[in-house]
Order: sequence, then C-alpha cells, then structure tokens
Amino acid sequence: MGFKESFSLKDNELNEKRVFRDAIHDYIHVDHLIIWRLINSQEVQRLRRVKQLGGTYQVFQSAEHSRFVHSLGVYQVVRRMLETECLDDVLSDYDKLCVMCAGLLHDIGHGPFSHSFEGVFQGNHEDMTVRIILEESEVHDILASVDESLPQDVASIIQHTHPNQILIQMVSSQLDADRMDYLLRDSYMTGTTYGKFDMSRILRTMRICDGKIVYKESGVQAIENYILARYHMYWQVYYHPTARSYEHLLQSIFARVKDLYAQKFEFKTNLHFLIPFLENNITVEAFTKLDEAVVLYYFSEFMNEDDFILSDLSARFLNRHLFKYKELKDMTKLAKIKALADSLGYDSHYYIMSDNQKQVPYLHYGESGELSEIEILDREGQLSPLPSKSEIVSAILNSKKFKSDQKVFFPKEIKDEVSVL
Amino acid sequence: MGFKESFSLKDNELNEKRVFRDAIHDYIHVDHLIIWRLINSQEVQRLRRVKQLGGTYQVFQSAEHSRFVHSLGVYQVVRRMLETECLDDVLSDYDKLCVMCAGLLHDIGHGPFSHSFEGVFQGNHEDMTVRIILEESEVHDILASVDESLPQDVASIIQHTHPNQILIQMVSSQLDADRMDYLLRDSYMTGTTYGKFDMSRILRTMRICDGKIVYKESGVQAIENYILARYHMYWQVYYHPTARSYEHLLQSIFARVKDLYAQKFEFKTNLHFLIPFLENNITVEAFTKLDEAVVLYYFSEFMNEDDFILSDLSARFLNRHLFKYKELKDMTKLAKIKALADSLGYDSHYYIMSDNQKQVPYLHYGESGELSEIEILDREGQLSPLPSKSEIVSAILNSKKFKSDQKVFFPKEIKDEVSVL
Amino acid sequence: MGFKESFSLKDNELNEKRVFRDAIHDYIHVDHLIIWRLINSQEVQRLRRVKQLGGTYQVFQSAEHSRFVHSLGVYQVVRRMLETECLDDVLSDYDKLCVMCAGLLHDIGHGPFSHSFEGVFQGNHEDMTVRIILEESEVHDILASVDESLPQDVASIIQHTHPNQILIQMVSSQLDADRMDYLLRDSYMTGTTYGKFDMSRILRTMRICDGKIVYKESGVQAIENYILARYHMYWQVYYHPTARSYEHLLQSIFARVKDLYAQKFEFKTNLHFLIPFLENNITVEAFTKLDEAVVLYYFSEFMNEDDFILSDLSARFLNRHLFKYKELKDMTKLAKIKALADSLGYDSHYYIMSDNQKQVPYLHYGESGELSEIEILDREGQLSPLPSKSEIVSAILNSKKFKSDQKVFFPKEIKDEVSVL
Amino acid sequence: MGFKESFSLKDNELNEKRVFRDAIHDYIHVDHLIIWRLINSQEVQRLRRVKQLGGTYQVFQSAEHSRFVHSLGVYQVVRRMLETECLDDVLSDYDKLCVMCAGLLHDIGHGPFSHSFEGVFQGNHEDMTVRIILEESEVHDILASVDESLPQDVASIIQHTHPNQILIQMVSSQLDADRMDYLLRDSYMTGTTYGKFDMSRILRTMRICDGKIVYKESGVQAIENYILARYHMYWQVYYHPTARSYEHLLQSIFARVKDLYAQKFEFKTNLHFLIPFLENNITVEAFTKLDEAVVLYYFSEFMNEDDFILSDLSARFLNRHLFKYKELKDMTKLAKIKALADSLGYDSHYYIMSDNQKQVPYLHYGESGELSEIEILDREGQLSPLPSKSEIVSAILNSKKFKSDQKVFFPKEIKDEVSVL
Repeated sequence: MGFKESFSLKDNELNEKRVFRDAIHDYIHVDHLIIWRLINSQEVQRLRRVKQLGGTYQVFQSAEHSRFVHSLGVYQVVRRMLETECLDDVLSDYDKLCVMCAGLLHDIGHGPFSHSFEGVFQGNHEDMTVRIILEESEVHDILASVDESLPQDVASIIQHTHPNQILIQMVSSQLDADRMDYLLRDSYMTGTTYGKFDMSRILRTMRICDGKIVYKESGVQAIENYILARYHMYWQVYYHPTARSYEHLLQSIFARVKDLYAQKFEFKTNLHFLIPFLENNITVEAFTKLDEAVVLYYFSEFMNEDDFILSDLSARFLNRHLFKYKELKDMTKLAKIKALADSLGYDSHYYIMSDNQKQVPYLHYGESGELSEIEILDREGQLSPLPSKSEIVSAILNSKKFKSDQKVFFPKEIKDEVSVL
Repeated sequence: MGFKESFSLKDNELNEKRVFRDAIHDYIHVDHLIIWRLINSQEVQRLRRVKQLGGTYQVFQSAEHSRFVHSLGVYQVVRRMLETECLDDVLSDYDKLCVMCAGLLHDIGHGPFSHSFEGVFQGNHEDMTVRIILEESEVHDILASVDESLPQDVASIIQHTHPNQILIQMVSSQLDADRMDYLLRDSYMTGTTYGKFDMSRILRTMRICDGKIVYKESGVQAIENYILARYHMYWQVYYHPTARSYEHLLQSIFARVKDLYAQKFEFKTNLHFLIPFLENNITVEAFTKLDEAVVLYYFSEFMNEDDFILSDLSARFLNRHLFKYKELKDMTKLAKIKALADSLGYDSHYYIMSDNQKQVPYLHYGESGELSEIEILDREGQLSPLPSKSEIVSAILNSKKFKSDQKVFFPKEIKDEVSVL
Repeated sequence: MGFKESFSLKDNELNEKRVFRDAIHDYIHVDHLIIWRLINSQEVQRLRRVKQLGGTYQVFQSAEHSRFVHSLGVYQVVRRMLETECLDDVLSDYDKLCVMCAGLLHDIGHGPFSHSFEGVFQGNHEDMTVRIILEESEVHDILASVDESLPQDVASIIQHTHPNQILIQMVSSQLDADRMDYLLRDSYMTGTTYGKFDMSRILRTMRICDGKIVYKESGVQAIENYILARYHMYWQVYYHPTARSYEHLLQSIFARVKDLYAQKFEFKTNLHFLIPFLENNITVEAFTKLDEAVVLYYFSEFMNEDDFILSDLSARFLNRHLFKYKELKDMTKLAKIKALADSLGYDSHYYIMSDNQKQVPYLHYGESGELSEIEILDREGQLSPLPSKSEIVSAILNSKKFKSDQKVFFPKEIKDEVSVL
Repeated sequence: MGFKESFSLKDNELNEKRVFRDAIHDYIHVDHLIIWRLINSQEVQRLRRVKQLGGTYQVFQSAEHSRFVHSLGVYQVVRRMLETECLDDVLSDYDKLCVMCAGLLHDIGHGPFSHSFEGVFQGNHEDMTVRIILEESEVHDILASVDESLPQDVASIIQHTHPNQILIQMVSSQLDADRMDYLLRDSYMTGTTYGKFDMSRILRTMRICDGKIVYKESGVQAIENYILARYHMYWQVYYHPTARSYEHLLQSIFARVKDLYAQKFEFKTNLHFLIPFLENNITVEAFTKLDEAVVLYYFSEFMNEDDFILSDLSARFLNRHLFKYKELKDMTKLAKIKALADSLGYDSHYYIMSDNQKQVPYLHYGESGELSEIEILDREGQLSPLPSKSEIVSAILNSKKFKSDQKVFFPKEIKDEVSVL
C-alpha cells in the first residue's frame, strides 16, 4: 500500500487543536499540524500585508481586511465541505489533506495591490502560487516533509489538472470555497447586504454523482441567490468606479517606475525590493519579500523623486486625490481626451485611462474557458445544468444585452475641459 | 383656508412621544395622538390574534408573528419615507397623516387564517378594511374625530382611488412600505437570508418626478435585490408545499362547517361568532369579534362533533397531521385521485385538493391589473421603467417559461395508493 | 446486558433526517424517530398555542413566539452539548436519549399565560410536566414504546432526582440548555441586545470532572456575560412593569371566574374546558385541551357576561387597557389605595394589585434551593465555584442591597386620586 | 455679533452631501465642506495606514481595521448625539462644528503600532494630536480657514480645557463617542459578542442638566451593559496575552534600533523617516510621514542588518514567531528568568519582558484623574453618580480585589528552561 493510500489524518492531528475566532465563520478550526505550520509560514503570513480588496477599501472604507483572513476562510469552507456526509465518504485522507492545503494556499501568489501590479509586472498570480508551492519556499518544505508528491498534488488542484475533479471543484469552480468565503466576507466587511446567501443550505444539498459535485434540486434557490449575490457584489463593490480609479492610479505609478527604470533614470530611492520585477527576473524569494507595506513605503519615497509624474502620482495616491471619471459612450472620444490632456501638460500615457467592465453572472461549460457547469440532481436521479432548473439563471443567460460599463478616468484638474468634449 | 390645508401635525403631537422596541426597525416611533389612539383601538389590537403567515409557521416554526407587528412596521416604513427630503417637501401635513393611517390600517380587514377563510366565507380583505374604516368602528370614530373627511381619504388610499398617486404608491405598489416590511420581517422571523435587501439605500434614492415616486439610477441594484428577495421568499417560504397543505386543510374545515350549516346539521358547539359568516350577513362588529383564538377554540370543539369529516379534519389540524402532497404533472390524474379517495372512504370534496402556484417577480403596467411600474430617473432627468435599466429584471420578464408548481394534496393514509396511480 | 446498556441511538435513526429552519440556531436537526414522534404529539404541538413570554409581548410587541419553538431550541442546545467531546465520551446512548427528551418536554406542563394561571388554578408547572410524562398521554406512550422505564427516567431529570447529575445540569441548572435558548431567543425576538452571549465559547469550555459539568477557566468571561445577560433581560424584559400589569389583569380575571363559580354564578359561557380547573380536579386530558386560544375565546365571551367585574376586566385585557402602576415605597400606602379603590367602586380584590420583583444574578449552592454552583476548572485541575474566579460575580454576590422593585397596579380611571395619596 | 455667534452650519453645507457606507453605522454622513476637507487631508488619510488594534489582529485575525474608519465612526456618533433634541437645543452651530472636528481628529497623533512606539519614542499621542492641530499641517490650515480660533477651540476639547464641559464629555469621558465606536467596531470586526451594547437607547436617554450630559434613569441598564462590554473587551481582546506578546516584540525592536543608533551603529537601511524620532527632534511633518507601512518596510530591511538582535527580532515579528508567556505570580522570579536568558545568549533587555494588566470597569470622579462621573437623572430631577443607581457598578466598585494579570514573555526557544524555574 502506497503512502497516499495509507496516509491518515488522524495521525497528523495536533495534540491541542487550535482555533481562530473569525467574524464570518465564528471559529476556524485547525486540527492538523501541517495546516498549522503552513499558516505560520512566511509565504502565508505575508498575505497579512496584502489587502483582499486592493483599492476598493477607498470606497467601502471599513473593508480593510487582508488576503490572509480570506485564505483562512477558504480553508474553513473546504473543511466544512469535507464534513458533509457525501464528501467524507468519497475522499481519502490524503485527498482531504491536499484540498485543505490548496484552499489555504490558493492566493499566496498575489502581488501587492494585485491586479494593477500584475498588469504591469507579473504574469498570472496562479502561476506564482504554483511556483511558490513547487520551488524553494517554507510552504514547499512543509508540504514536502509529509510526502514528496504533496507539493505537486496541491499545485495540480490549483492548476485544474488534478485527476479528481471533485477537489478542483471545491477550490476553483463557479461555486467553490473561494467565492463563498469572499462574498460573505467582503459583504460583511463593506457592510452591504448584497453578498449574503445561504451557505449552510448549499452545503446541505451537495451530493456526489458521476465523480463530480452536484446539488440537489432543493438547493436551486440558494444557488440562485448566490449567483445574484455575486452579480450584485461585482457591480456594487468590485467594479465601483472609484475603486477602478484607484487601480488605474496604481497602475500608472507602476508603469512610470518601470519606464523610468528602462530609461536608466537615477532614483534616489533604494529600489532593491523591486529590481527583480523591473528586470523581469522574478524569483520566489524576491516575490515573498514584496508586500503592500514595501510598496507603500516606496510611494512615500517617490514623492521626493525628481520626476514630476512619479512624485505627483504617488502624492495623489497617498492623499487620495483620485482620478475623476465619466462614462465613455463613444470610443472616438478617448483619443480626443488624450490629446486634450497632453496639450494641458498631463502625459496621457499615465493620466488618461479607460476600461470596460462586464460581468456575466453564470457561464456555460466551455464559455470563456469555464471548466464546469453547476449541475443539479433531480429526484429521478437525472443531472441537468443549473440554467435548465432555474428560470432566473436561464433568463439571465438568454439575455444578450448584458450590462457593461465603459469609463474614462482623468485628473480632477482637467474636469471642466473634459466635460465639454 | 380649509381644514386640510390648515391641519398641522405639530399640533397633534403627543406630549410624551411613544416608542415600541422592534426587532426589525429597532424602534417604532409614535409621535401623534391619533396614531397612538388607532394602535390601541380594538380593530388594530385584534390583529395581535391573527398570524402574519397563516399556516407557514408550521414550516418555518419560529415565524409566529402577528399582523399587528407587521402593521406597526408598515406604519414605521411610511414614517421613514416621510422623513426623506423629497417627500417631506411635496406632501401636506394632512396627506402625511392620511398615509400614516393607511399604512397602519391596511390589514385590519384580514380574517383569521386569512387566505383559507376568505376563500370560503368572505370577499376580499381590502373591502373589509375599507368597510371598517368607513362604517361603525373605533377606528372610524378616531379618524372622524380629526375631520369628517379623514376616513374616506384614508380609505381611498387603500382603494387606489386617492387623487395623489404618491400616497397610493407608498402603501400599495410594486415597491411599497407593506412589501418592504413583510420581506424584512418574515425573513428575520423565519431565519432565512432570502428576504434581506437594502431598504436604506432604496429610500435614499427615492425622488418625486411627474407627481410620482421614482428612483435614481444608483438605486437600481438595491431594487433588483428587493425583487429577487421577493421572488425567493415566495418560493422558499410563502408557497412552501407544507404551508399550502395547511391552508388546504383549513379551507376544508371551513367548507365542511359551511356545508353542514346549510344542511341544518345540529352542532353541539355554540357557533355564534361564526353565524354571520355562515349566513353571509357579515357586519363590521361581527368581523371584529372573530380572530384566530376563536377559530382555534372552535376547532377544539369540533373534535367532539358527531360529523366524522369535521371532527377528523379538526384533529388533523390541531395535531399537525397535515395532508401529503405530490407534483401533479398531468391534470387528468386529479380525477383519478379523487375517485380513488372516494372509493377508499375519503370524501374527495374535502380530502383531495390541488393548486398551481406561480410567481412573477415583476409586472409591467397594466399586466394583471398592476397600477404602476417602478420607474427609474437617470442623470439626464429621463424616466424609464425598471426593466429597461435592469438586465436582471428585463431578462426575467422576457423569459416566457416561468416557474409554476402544480400539486395535489391528500391524506397520508392513502399515500401508497396515490403513488401508484 | 440490560436494555439501557444495549440501546443504540444509531438503530433509532430516521431514514430521512429532518430539519427545522430556526432563527436562533439556523437549523434544528431531528435524527431520531422518537424525537420526531414526540414533536408531533398533541402535548408538544399544544405548546404552539402557549406564548413563551406570557404578557411581555404587549411591551416587546415583536416577541410573539411560542413555547413550542423554545422547546425545540432547548432540545437543539442539548443536542449540541452532546456533540462536544467531553459529553460524547461519558454518556451512554440511553442517557443521551433521556436528556434529549427531557430538553424537548420540560415545558409541556405550562398552562395558558402560565404564571397568572398557575397563581390561581394550578400547582407547579413542573409537576404537571411530570404527570403528562408519567400518566396517560401521547408523550407517555411514545416514550414507553421505547422502554417501560423511559418515562420515569425522563421525568426524574426534570424532577432533579436522576442519579446522573450531568443530565440534570444540562436541562435545569444555573447554566443550562433552557436558559441558554430562552435568553438568545427572547433577545432576538424582542430586538434587544441584552440577552446575547457567546454560547459557542461556553460549550467549547465545558468539561466533565467529578461526575459533573464544569467549565475551563478560559470560559469565565463568556459565563460572566451570560449571567449579566440574564440579569439585564430580567429587568429590561421579563419584569417590565407593563408586562407585570398584564399578568395582574389576567390573574384578576382568573380569580373572578373562580370566585363566581364558587358562588354558583350562572355563566352564559359554556365553561366546559375550565370546569376541571375550577373544581380542582385537573386531569392530564383536561390540561392538554386547555391552551391560550381557548382562554382568549372565553375572554371574548366574558365580555357579554352579566357580572360587571368579569366583563370589564375581559374587555380591558382584549383591548389592552392595562392597569397603570406606580412605585410603592411605603407598604402602608397599599391599604390606603385599596380603600380608595373600594370607595370609588373598584373592588380592590380585583382592581388593586402589588408585587415586588427581585433578581439575584447568581446563587450559591443551597441558597434558595439552588442545587449546584457553576464550577470552574483551573489549569492545575482544581475546581472552584464561579465567584472565586470572577470578580464581577463575586462583587455582585457581596453586594447586599440588591435591586428590587415594588409596585402597585390600579385602573387608569383612578390615576389622579392614587397619585395624591 | 462675533464670528462664533454668527457662524451657521447651514452655510457650510456641501451642495451634494457625501456618505460613506460603514459596517457599524450603516452610513456615515458628511454634510459640511470642512469635514469633507478634513477627511481628505493627509493627516487623516495617514490613519488608513495605522491599525486600530495594533498587535491584537494577530489574535483576532479578522480585526484588521484602521484608525481611519474608527475616526470616521467617532465623528458619526458625535453627529448622532448632535441630532438628539437635548444637544440640538443647547449647542451653538460653532460648538457643533468644534465637536465634530474634535471627534474626527482625536486620533491623528497616534504613531505606528501606537502603544509600543509611544513607549520608546514619543510622548503622549494626545499631545501630538494637539500639535498637529495647532502647528503647520493641512488639518490646521483647513480649520484656520474657517476662523483663526477654530484650531485652538478644537484642541481644547481634546485637551479637556474647553469651557463647555458638554463638548469634552462627548469626545472624551467614561461614556463618549470614542469608546462607543471602538467597542462596537472592535467587537464586530473580531467577531466576538462582548462589545455589543444598546447605543440607541443610551443616546435616547441622554439629557442636559447643570451644563453637563447626564442620563435618565431608564438608561441605567443600557449603561451597565456598556460598562460590562468594555470590561469584557479589555480582558478578552485588548489584553489578550498573545496581543501583549506582539506589543513587547515591537517595543524590543524599537528599543534596539534606538540603542544601536545611540551607539552609532552603521545601519545598511536608510533610516531617514526615523531619524527625527531617534534624535528626539520630532516635527509634525516628520510625524505625518511615519506610518505602519514605513515601519514594516524597515522591519523587512532590518532582517538584513548585521546586528543579530535586530535582525532576529524583526524576523520573529514578520513571520509571527511571537514570544511565549507564563503567569508571573512571584516577582522575584523575573530576575531569575532574566539571568537565565542572559546565560543562554538572549539579551534579557530585549528578550525578557513583563507586564501587569489591570482594568477597572468604572472610576469615580478624581480617581486616576478621571474627570467626570456618569451621572443619572431620576424622575424627581435629582442627579446621582451611576454607582448609586446601579447595583452592578456599585458592587464592582466596592470589590477591592480586582483582576490583574502579571505575565512574563520570553523566546519560545527557552520555554523548557523557563518552565522549570
């Protein structure tokens, strides 16, 4: 019998089990030594210094929580899933360990202010998560100390390549522990009612069929609620124009630093934490050292740099002089606004941004690379995709004119000039 | 200057303002003597003995609240609406008084276990509400003591005939104080998350335009949430099959009493509270005396009547031996099930029932008699109906195959026989 | 091996487990057939028609919940206690069954408007609970169908005579499932914050030591919070003067009926449900038939009786014309107020009442018959009573001048005359 | 008429009022331009980068909120107080402005990780708050732009020297906006139930008497609850030993940097943000630049310094290898533990710390410099201090043996050696 077959979670239990008090899940339980060690690793602790909502806390100012608490929350939702009868039956102890680790670690590859940062410097944060798990890191060593194959098995869940579809669905699908925790948590922290849904009921209606997680028909309305919760959180919170304004400002600062570095500008600031990123030579070690504290420190320093654009953008950021925005109905106007900005002395490359946000509440299999439907098990034992059991989701899918929001962002100082364009 | 123009709420203020502590609105404030006297009238106090959810508390067993607390809640939401700048500006003190009274009184015409009871005995509960307000009653006298025209003005809001559309919208429209209170309250009391929505935001985005209440575009998503909340509460709570089973059982008891009385059956029970209803000679006085305590008392007595059907049905009700149910896909089966029941000694007139529940989340103007759209005011000052500003609502409206649920209900004792039909 | 030793809960599991959605505990789980049958017995269903808070819902008007939901809640807290490692280890399956039944059934002996009713008619409600369990009833039959000794074993928990102290502590002690559920539930339903405490933490710190339930030192502050929650709920909710006014009015009506019956007054009302109580010949069967619906029906009828006192008091009750009250600092005044009332035509026996409420937040062993301390287990394994580990509780116990509230209640009509006495 | 008498808040209203969505107060309303400008000043925005709970978020990991949201919350509670009838009547518009500013600004003098930082570098944070308001700063300029006397008037509220006692009580007393916000907020964010109390009721019972804020007798129990909430939050959250361990570690790092600087150690790190603090030459400008991001950045850099103590302590901090602790019953042991640590190579000056936490739930006037009692107004119009109206508070005050907790903190590596001492 191989290691994976003989592995027993029981043997890995902590003598004294640990709990974290949590505002969302009441308690987060840590029963196993490996999980406890992972939580205390530097790569996971670093997430305390990376905010969950990036710039959104500038709008929903009470939502200042970090990716660390979210990661613990995802782990806890995975744990609750594993306690359901249906999953307890079909998964081995080794599988359970893999998926708890994957839930806890799925976000460790997020850079500081993650989306703006990724846009300029880094590839995909999932790739970085996988690198940290597989390359030299405390996390890697802790996983490998259990079994040599564990890092790869955990990584393959995050990469969607693990042979057991159930484990992938638990951590990363249209209805997974990640989304469940962040909707509940972001909703609680922002003080909105939009993200609430009935997780208990969803977990109670979970079943295994054909080697996949499916849901009993009696869970359909709880799932509809979850999907609408997600839809509303996107428009009310995640895509709030002021939050986007903040992301654009960040992205301009990062872009300016990169461009100046390429032009061999002489920085007063000692950039050593950023060098690997500026030279596109990112190591796991360098990545782990970079968090939002370091980036905020650099912004403080940048206010004293001799480059006007860099010092101006940094001051705008730290003192919350964000870009203004307006709807952009006609894309030809964008060029005009850029020309205007340039003529007024605001380099449009850094001072004029536009984006177009869309949010589709549910995706069919294959659509946009979506890997799985949410499937519903009816009383006769038949499986069907969610939209055929939900009038709401079906109606939404058949609607072709889905909301999108195109906006242009610009400095407050040129507001009057832009408004007459 | 006539009475209505010169009327001042300030002059009617209580020396010592009253508050009710409330689980939904924190405090319900009573500032005016008229409202305080109405709350203490016997017609309003009677609502303490009429449950808000009829039979639904058999399923959601913590939802045992009465129409009295709901009525106070509706009054409180009206009061909060009146505090918004937009309404405070356009309504006279007399209008404000009218609409507060209408909110408080809108449900006083509900009979015991209202829907089943109405089905057998009474016409519409709104007609009875209007009669109580206009005919001899404590409520009428309190209103008339302010001004002779007040009863009629309050009644016309409930009848949708008041000249000021705004007052009607506040109390009875697709987005009114009634629905807002019951969704929040029923959701809280059942312990579900379905009925939550952001009332604060909806009230904040309320505006007056063209003599109607409309909503700013920034309120659209809060309204979407409200509409979905309503949709989900209907399917999860109000139309729950067990609740419907309970309503059918009640209706059978009422029907049996009525039929026996028509057949001059000699009741042991002194039916005097019910006589006016059995003889279709309902007065406001007789109506006010009938509440759920009286009806429950009769059911206790009916268990000793010599008619088997009546005593059997009453015992089933009090001891919660409800009818079982199954989906009825094919209406031809209904006749078969009735024949089966008759052959097994269960009079199908009282023991077999069926219903078909539908719920459309939003109605256009004119559709099913709907009197008004929810209208959205955009930044350019244009009004448009909600669906043109909400992808979700629009998608739902365009979907033609809306959920309906056809079920047949029958005694548990013949479950096996029914299942093989 | 006897029945009790060999009894297995597993063998009694329902094929399909049941859940009740609950506003306090989210879900109440029913896993065993016996529990399901007890819930559906007429004695437990009757509790749906007995309000948990008696008259208090006249003050905290959203608190209209019944003893039925509370009883389910107590059962659920017992169930959660049984899931803790410490209790799971030390109790047999038969003990677990006994204590779940005792939790569910502990209130079935409550009469309508229980305290006022008990004061006039009945002995103690616990005695009646025990009689229902031991004598002829559906509940008795269901229990006896498991084993002949089960009714007696369940009753002995409620009577505090069971040999296993742990079972008694779970259902009836200074920190038990009954109090935990009612504080949380009454607080939620009234909308106050007073009754909240951290039940999860208390359960997590529960241990077994010397054959008793004790609590780890890390639980002391959660227990302090619970004790203060209880203290505040008593003064803010349960002893609210308006609630007491309502109880006094009820008691006067009951007393008047009893006196009239003794005087052979000819009632128009058919009193048959009350006769056994008026003749002090209470059977379990008669008790089970009497609920608040019946009593409220009688009050409606009493309004038409020829006795002025009875019809007047009943009308006051149903239309909420409660007695006024004032503080009674000097007991000699009570006689004066009574004389005054008599002289003004209000029979002081029914129209003047006084009471003196006290609430001691914590009792030592032996004090007022208290059967057990809350005991704290420290790190060295030593047990000590709560006060020696809690400055708050100790300070409170040492305070000798504890709050009491002496009030006199009288008809509103003589308020002015009373006020000058 | 002078400026203060003629000043009108109405004239300072924003054209478009602003709101912040907030998890605690639902919405925080900004009606006046001055407040809006203060919120956007760099001194207030800096508070986004200073955590409210210092090290406590290491234990209650979801409590990652900043002093910025708390400051907004205090402002909002002040605003709600001003809306009560009693305060609206007695305060001039200028006074109202002063106290709103004082509420918003009261924390701007907090350094990074404030208590540990203050211990090593800075004097009192209130002194710094006053300096920022009175010296050169954006905040000063905004205040002075309204009237030259405004900075001094706001500062004098914070300094307790303002002639109007009411304003001081609102912002800084035993029952003030500061404490109310932080108890509610910290409780919500940590997910504990300890800090909840009924703020609505407290505000409703507020009155002005003899030029002071007092409370009606009907508010006593809500105030008791508040005082107990505070007591429990201290022991459960603020004085949690792990949080203290974290504070000690911070203090050791700061102390080591200071000592090394005094010894002219050659730092690799560019310490320029810290120099003014190390040289005890703190300016408002230097203070404003120092936030937790900068300090965390320095800690990252310190891991590479050649001083072992500094690099070791910094790594412990960032990777959460906190000091262990044990109770210190006998102070003579402290010297032994220090000697032990020194002998094992851990410089006891930085590696061994002890503290003794106490918390008195209520203070009499004069005690520990407490400036005012909470005073209660009874029905006869008499004022008395809270303890004479509250058995709980009185009992607590009379108790002499109040909880204190003396602990010693030491590196995990010497745990075994310490435990046998």
